[in-house]
Amino acid sequence: MSFAFDILAKSGSARAGIFSTPHGGVETPAFMPVGTLATVKSLDPDDLVQMGASMILGNAYHLHLRPGDEVVREMGGLHAFMHWDRPILTDSGGFQVFSLAQLRTVNEEGVEFQSHLDGSRRFFTPEIVMQIERNLGADVIMQFDHVIPGQSDEATARDASDRSIRWLERCLKELDRLASDLSHDQALFPILQGGIHPQLRREAAERISEMHDWRGFGIGGLSVGEEKAKMYGTIEVVDEALPRTHPRYLMGVGFPEDLIESIGRGVDLFDCVAPTRMGRNGAVFTRDGRLNIKRTEYRLDPRPLDSDCDCAACTRFSRAYIRHLFVSDEILGLRLLSLHNVHFLLSIARGARQAIINGEYDRWSREWLSRYHTSSPLAV
Amino acid sequence: MSFAFDILAKSGSARAGIFSTPHGGVETPAFMPVGTLATVKSLDPDDLVQMGASMILGNAYHLHLRPGDEVVREMGGLHAFMHWDRPILTDSGGFQVFSLAQLRTVNEEGVEFQSHLDGSRRFFTPEIVMQIERNLGADVIMQFDHVIPGQSDEATARDASDRSIRWLERCLKELDRLASDLSHDQALFPILQGGIHPQLRREAAERISEMHDWRGFGIGGLSVGEEKAKMYGTIEVVDEALPRTHPRYLMGVGFPEDLIESIGRGVDLFDCVAPTRMGRNGAVFTRDGRLNIKRTEYRLDPRPLDSDCDCAACTRFSRAYIRHLFVSDEILGLRLLSLHNVHFLLSIARGARQAIINGEYDRWSREWLSRYHTSSPLAV
Repeated sequence: MSFAFDILAKSGSARAGIFSTPHGGVETPAFMPVGTLATVKSLDPDDLVQMGASMILGNAYHLHLRPGDEVVREMGGLHAFMHWDRPILTDSGGFQVFSLAQLRTVNEEGVEFQSHLDGSRRFFTPEIVMQIERNLGADVIMQFDHVIPGQSDEATARDASDRSIRWLERCLKELDRLASDLSHDQALFPILQGGIHPQLRREAAERISEMHDWRGFGIGGLSVGEEKAKMYGTIEVVDEALPRTHPRYLMGVGFPEDLIESIGRGVDLFDCVAPTRMGRNGAVFTRDGRLNIKRTEYRLDPRPLDSDCDCAACTRFSRAYIRHLFVSDEILGLRLLSLHNVHFLLSIARGARQAIINGEYDRWSREWLSRYHTSSPLAV
Repeated sequence: MSFAFDILAKSGSARAGIFSTPHGGVETPAFMPVGTLATVKSLDPDDLVQMGASMILGNAYHLHLRPGDEVVREMGGLHAFMHWDRPILTDSGGFQVFSLAQLRTVNEEGVEFQSHLDGSRRFFTPEIVMQIERNLGADVIMQFDHVIPGQSDEATARDASDRSIRWLERCLKELDRLASDLSHDQALFPILQGGIHPQLRREAAERISEMHDWRGFGIGGLSVGEEKAKMYGTIEVVDEALPRTHPRYLMGVGFPEDLIESIGRGVDLFDCVAPTRMGRNGAVFTRDGRLNIKRTEYRLDPRPLDSDCDCAACTRFSRAYIRHLFVSDEILGLRLLSLHNVHFLLSIARGARQAIINGEYDRWSREWLSRYHTSSPLAV
């Protein structure tokens, strides 16, 4: 089985579809849990299957440093290594090189940087990153791109966008050159840059679309410090500029309100570390807004984290118990909060999909956002 | 359903039985995973069910401090609080007061100590501990006892043993006095003390047995620094001294070789934090001895932790993957190692039970120990 995207229903700009990959289909809109180091932090693959996750992420930068992409290849690729036989997407490490690594030098050839782990000097080029992602063997692999801060001026944004497009050509060429011992195809996704500058986004979309018959498009450089209104406006521009026939993946975006706003603007795929990272800080998504489980008011609270939730935390445990675990630094507490938060985002995507199929996405999303923004969990 | 102990088969001093409790039966010999703070560290109750755990432990000292035994009672008791509807045993905190707490003062009335968490002054008496254990609502509750180091001289051991027996009488009396809002019975287990002094052990066994019609006996004060030979010798004395009609619980003992040696000396129940604590340090039980997953030699090792193991770690993941998780501080690594180690001890108890039923415990245990002590995992 190879790649395809079938749109089953539309509701405004929102689409419900199936993105087919060599490791099975992804019902879109979909939230993709982030498994940076070949594990979705604190969760078991069985947890993810149980909550209906389909495609998950790995990260080329992190896996190159630990355990090494050659190790992953030797252990049969990322699917076998982490025991996940559903679709996987690897991010290229472009974002990490520019956000996490130290002392980087960018030139046309690539990026020289120091590992955030041990300070060792490393050099990433589009070619090297394709070799890494080929070794990892995910279904979808992202191009190596030049990432800049969200409020960058137009000249900086143009420079980074143009370089990302030149690097995309090199990624494509390198993938053609590389031998593959994989038993399945890999789809390279371009990453659309251009910051919050509509003209840059449109130009980039046009040049990228003309370059190759892509299987899908990444939208990069959003949710990196710009205002929310600018982000949503840019997604509208991108929705117009990209072909409507292919899945669009809005990279690194995954708060509940962002999912809902972006699905309404034609986005199909999302990822975000927020649900697991927030879980590790005690923050909990609920339909009535966020709560923090550390608060004393939950000490004797017999209710589940979210009374409408059917996740493996909410169907078994009280807020009081999970608070106790969290306050006592028990690992099960971290796991249950991560489990709930990831399940919450998967559920939003499923709910959105159903609303699109029912042709009522606009109403559904307005009601969802209204409850989320106006209620307080204290008042439930 | 209340308490009973039915012995189905014997093989030498070893016994295979069923210990019935208000929350179901425990097939003995049994290893009881330790859930100190109302969670078996890093595991989910579903993991424990999947690996066939029946009775688990909670700890009165720890749960009194966090979240508070009153909180647990208000949340419906320990079973409901931690979502475990199988048997639970709570330790009294005697061991923790003497090993963990600071600045303690012992007198006949009880023990004054400082919480290891915040230094707050606390006072435990047999009566207070019974109130705590009643609040927690476990099936089996241990008496409050006076714990001393393993190599204590006979005078010190006699003093502590005698005090423990006096405290046992007070525990019994207090339990009679206390009202219960529990829907099930609780069985108080005495704890046999006396260090490594045979005469003290015999005297204590006699006095305790005469005091009341107990449902089972705890054996305390072993595996606390004395030589292994002394420990096994003492268990033989206790095996002779205690009635053979009741379950014997050897407290805090749970390394593989200790389980096997002690089952052969008439012990039925075990607990130990080793499998989870060792798991958190990267140590792994295998049938061929212990290994440490951190070692570089496992970097590309495609084998499971133990090739004969059918736990949820060994049936899915390679040593290479688990090593990667552990080295990268990923929570899933801790969970998988704990899961394997706990499963390993549960399996030993199951294997021992079957060997007893087959009437071949002596041969089985000799073969098991021989492989465990002589092989090296490197040679597998």
